[in-house]
Amino acid sequence: MQEFPRQIDTSSSASLKMQNQLKIFPKDHCTSPSRFLDSVGERHLIHLLTCWLGPVAPPPPLGIGDDCAVLEAPSRAQKQLLTTDSLTYNQHFDDGAQAEQAGAKLIKRNVSDITAMGGQPGPALLNLLCGPDLSLDWLEQFVYGIRRSCETYGVTIVGGDISQLEAGHFTASLTLSGYTDGDPALRSTATTGDAIYVTGTLGGSILGKHLRFEPRIKEGQWLLEQKLCTAMMDLTDGLGKDLAALLSEGSSAEVQLENLPISDDARKCADDDGQSPEEHAFCDGEDYELLFTVGQETELSDFEANWRREFPDLELTRIGRIVEAHPAGRYIDATSGEALRWQSGFEHFKKR
Amino acid sequence: MQEFPRQIDTSSSASLKMQNQLKIFPKDHCTSPSRFLDSVGERHLIHLLTCWLGPVAPPPPLGIGDDCAVLEAPSRAQKQLLTTDSLTYNQHFDDGAQAEQAGAKLIKRNVSDITAMGGQPGPALLNLLCGPDLSLDWLEQFVYGIRRSCETYGVTIVGGDISQLEAGHFTASLTLSGYTDGDPALRSTATTGDAIYVTGTLGGSILGKHLRFEPRIKEGQWLLEQKLCTAMMDLTDGLGKDLAALLSEGSSAEVQLENLPISDDARKCADDDGQSPEEHAFCDGEDYELLFTVGQETELSDFEANWRREFPDLELTRIGRIVEAHPAGRYIDATSGEALRWQSGFEHFKKR
Repeated sequence: MQEFPRQIDTSSSASLKMQNQLKIFPKDHCTSPSRFLDSVGERHLIHLLTCWLGPVAPPPPLGIGDDCAVLEAPSRAQKQLLTTDSLTYNQHFDDGAQAEQAGAKLIKRNVSDITAMGGQPGPALLNLLCGPDLSLDWLEQFVYGIRRSCETYGVTIVGGDISQLEAGHFTASLTLSGYTDGDPALRSTATTGDAIYVTGTLGGSILGKHLRFEPRIKEGQWLLEQKLCTAMMDLTDGLGKDLAALLSEGSSAEVQLENLPISDDARKCADDDGQSPEEHAFCDGEDYELLFTVGQETELSDFEANWRREFPDLELTRIGRIVEAHPAGRYIDATSGEALRWQSGFEHFKKR
Repeated sequence: MQEFPRQIDTSSSASLKMQNQLKIFPKDHCTSPSRFLDSVGERHLIHLLTCWLGPVAPPPPLGIGDDCAVLEAPSRAQKQLLTTDSLTYNQHFDDGAQAEQAGAKLIKRNVSDITAMGGQPGPALLNLLCGPDLSLDWLEQFVYGIRRSCETYGVTIVGGDISQLEAGHFTASLTLSGYTDGDPALRSTATTGDAIYVTGTLGGSILGKHLRFEPRIKEGQWLLEQKLCTAMMDLTDGLGKDLAALLSEGSSAEVQLENLPISDDARKCADDDGQSPEEHAFCDGEDYELLFTVGQETELSDFEANWRREFPDLELTRIGRIVEAHPAGRYIDATSGEALRWQSGFEHFKKR
């Protein structure tokens, strides 16, 4: 339900910073009024948004312009999915991000939720909450990022809402629908003995992957079709926090730390801050990789060989297994048999 | 798509102010840390929200707790609806509103959108964007208002997102699904000669109706069943702005000003500010009444008699008709044949 970066701060995306890029809230708002949000009325703004979205914004009643969007009903064999996620300036992106990247991120983090259930994304509603000093040039590029990403993933924008915030504030929320053919993959259905897998490499997404990631949509759908996964989710708050969602009261996770697929960026972060690369891989947020379990009746080596044939370019790593609840804690080091140092992930809101 | 109060300001709901009511951002945040948002972690917050929502929050996969909510598929004869609307502190409610009223308002303004298409509301996603200094006591009452209103209208909260904003800020967004049996009522389908109707009385909602209104859900469904409406929408930005949405390029609206159902609160506002009661009825926002058209082949007196039999307690007023585009403007005074003084409603964002 919640997806938060672990430690985004406003100076951290410096490596992505570009010369001459658009500012979300340019300082000359009062002297140059023609390209700010408060220079256009709401109706014209909706017109602009619809133009900028182009082919991904169908006309009403299926699209923008009526009290509600009207959706095509799914077929009886399909299950319908619905998810929502927000993107706030200075929380999920900062001045180091290009507007287009930020727009794409809003789409991709929602697509990643649909992906995590093995689904195919569909129509979406876009909520914009903006201060009056928002740059229209920046917004156009942001919406262009949304459009490009919608085209990539087959998403349409069929409605939404525009609301005013105080100057200097910007939040965009997306509500994305989707569907699976047959039952979706859930989080709560893993059992003792299941093997635990992750796709890709983990950690250090703050250095750029949190903007550049690709939701694992084909992989999620393939996994659902194989009918081998006992549970699945996407990694957004970090393995250390998200893994707990796969564990029932009566189970723990035995993790093979030496098998963790540590990203190059996790190693770079470790070089910088003195934490271990394993800690970055285990605890950093915003990996947007798939975390899933496979039952013990499955021949794992066959499954892994099938994966490599299907997705030769995306690493798949068995990182441990689900075991009966261990007295030492929820996460157990498979080598030492002792509790892992990191028993919980980042809790946002909470003072530390 | 957008629904904005016309002129809410933070001192305006004084008549609703109560002694000893909960403050959304109490000033003693630093000295009394135990009942603020940042005193609980995200996981505990989700637990609290689920408890507070009680029976309107079903368990996963249909409810809160997985990457997506899984919806029951509608039947083939039904059309699915989706709408979203936000509620921002100091924009849509202020310190004069009780937390419970604000929570109910979030549900009701979304239900009103479903109502405007003749639909029945269903599962919803709740997005909370909160500063760390938000009072948990206030939030509990806000969520209690959501729960009460969900119970009234048959809405369930099946997922959502929690996101952090800067201190002192609070926005809640709801995405509400719904369905109609058969085709929904649209905005764009009125034609020349149609009679224009509104339910209830208009204007002055700032004095309390913007919090206390009841979405016209039974009336909307009844109108859809009658198959007499050529177009329908709900009044959120004020008749003066919303009526334009029913007019195609080739049409104008002839309005019988003397027939406008002026509310007592519109008259009170007029006494206070010197504007006419008609202007308040025509231009004020947040009425949440139904605005609809009936084709000229319908015997209007029969239709009106049927309405009075079905809804004896809710006024129905024929306020004009759709005519061919008039050179003087989009809104024409039926008595004088000249342009109405008020040719457009409030445009939010736009500097005046």
